[in-house]
Amino acid sequence: MSVRPVYLQYSRNDDKKPGLRASPMHPPLNFCHVCGSALAQRTPPGDQFPRAVCDACGHVHYVNPKVVTGCIPEWEGKILLCKRGIEPRLGHWTLPAGFLEMGESCSAGAARETVEEACADVEIGELFSFVNVLYIGQIHLFYRARMRSPEFAVTPESTEIMLVDEQDIPWDDLAFATVRYTLRRYFEDRAAGKFGFHTTDFTHFPGRA
Amino acid sequence: MSVRPVYLQYSRNDDKKPGLRASPMHPPLNFCHVCGSALAQRTPPGDQFPRAVCDACGHVHYVNPKVVTGCIPEWEGKILLCKRGIEPRLGHWTLPAGFLEMGESCSAGAARETVEEACADVEIGELFSFVNVLYIGQIHLFYRARMRSPEFAVTPESTEIMLVDEQDIPWDDLAFATVRYTLRRYFEDRAAGKFGFHTTDFTHFPGRA
Repeated sequence: MSVRPVYLQYSRNDDKKPGLRASPMHPPLNFCHVCGSALAQRTPPGDQFPRAVCDACGHVHYVNPKVVTGCIPEWEGKILLCKRGIEPRLGHWTLPAGFLEMGESCSAGAARETVEEACADVEIGELFSFVNVLYIGQIHLFYRARMRSPEFAVTPESTEIMLVDEQDIPWDDLAFATVRYTLRRYFEDRAAGKFGFHTTDFTHFPGRA
Repeated sequence: MSVRPVYLQYSRNDDKKPGLRASPMHPPLNFCHVCGSALAQRTPPGDQFPRAVCDACGHVHYVNPKVVTGCIPEWEGKILLCKRGIEPRLGHWTLPAGFLEMGESCSAGAARETVEEACADVEIGELFSFVNVLYIGQIHLFYRARMRSPEFAVTPESTEIMLVDEQDIPWDDLAFATVRYTLRRYFEDRAAGKFGFHTTDFTHFPGRA
């Protein structure tokens, strides 16, 4: 399926154009964060895309995709999964992952998130999957990871943690399409005896593609 | 209105430093972009890092690393380089690359940047290099790319374009350390007859590491 890319920045509340909508996670850009003046939406000189521009101080508020970094923690063939204790997808199962922080590498972020979500200590290996999630402006990365011990614990972010064999993966109850994609490729590669690097683009919410 | 500037959030691994400094590219977060109120810097409940928080409407202004995507355009063994016509690093040579836009995949962004900077049409291949540039909160990606024709042209972003053999790469006049890293690995792999995937972390400005 061929999809025309949508290159849009977040718009003001009153903007009726298609593209990324303002939401609780992506609120509208109404005011300049430098000087507090009201923002206009227009294409700056030399640019190709509309941006939220401050006519008072000149600052252009660029909005760009965010990186979510995580891992596939393995212990003696079992995979560690977390039941989400927070939105989005509260109550569904996921691999440990979260937003990359400033000053942090993607592999360090994946290890940090595994501590934060599951109190588990992992050694991060090679980058395994790389998914452009176009409809939410995110990139999801998952690294192979070896658990240094079989220890884990629930956290404020996860109500339940488990180490499961492939046949016990709750495929119909996974939190995110990128987690499903990653686990599918992981078990295929493991069965084939060789891990590769997998990348794809998700253009629409699951079920609408 | 006089408001104490709030700098971008601190990085976890860099607690001794005062965090990412405000700069022309990263101006201070003084005002809420949703409601226009003055922002405070504190750690929200359940979070581990200080953020710019709006006490009026509750919005938390997260700041996360940005993705720069580019490619290594090749035509009959020669590599396409662009002399930068804009800051940063005006007048120095680079591979075509730029900030990933919303709704765009990293490979689509690499092809778009090659048109914008060099009017060159490329077929994007495999992801080749992935560099965490920690001191500026960026990730730099470069894809292998085949030029569909040897045509190119200067643009508002590039004052000069050239197709060069390996021995003519201006190593001492490259714009960015990630470009140097990528080209070094590229020629090593090409000489070895097999292209791999290369990743590293740059923790300090070149010359200070």
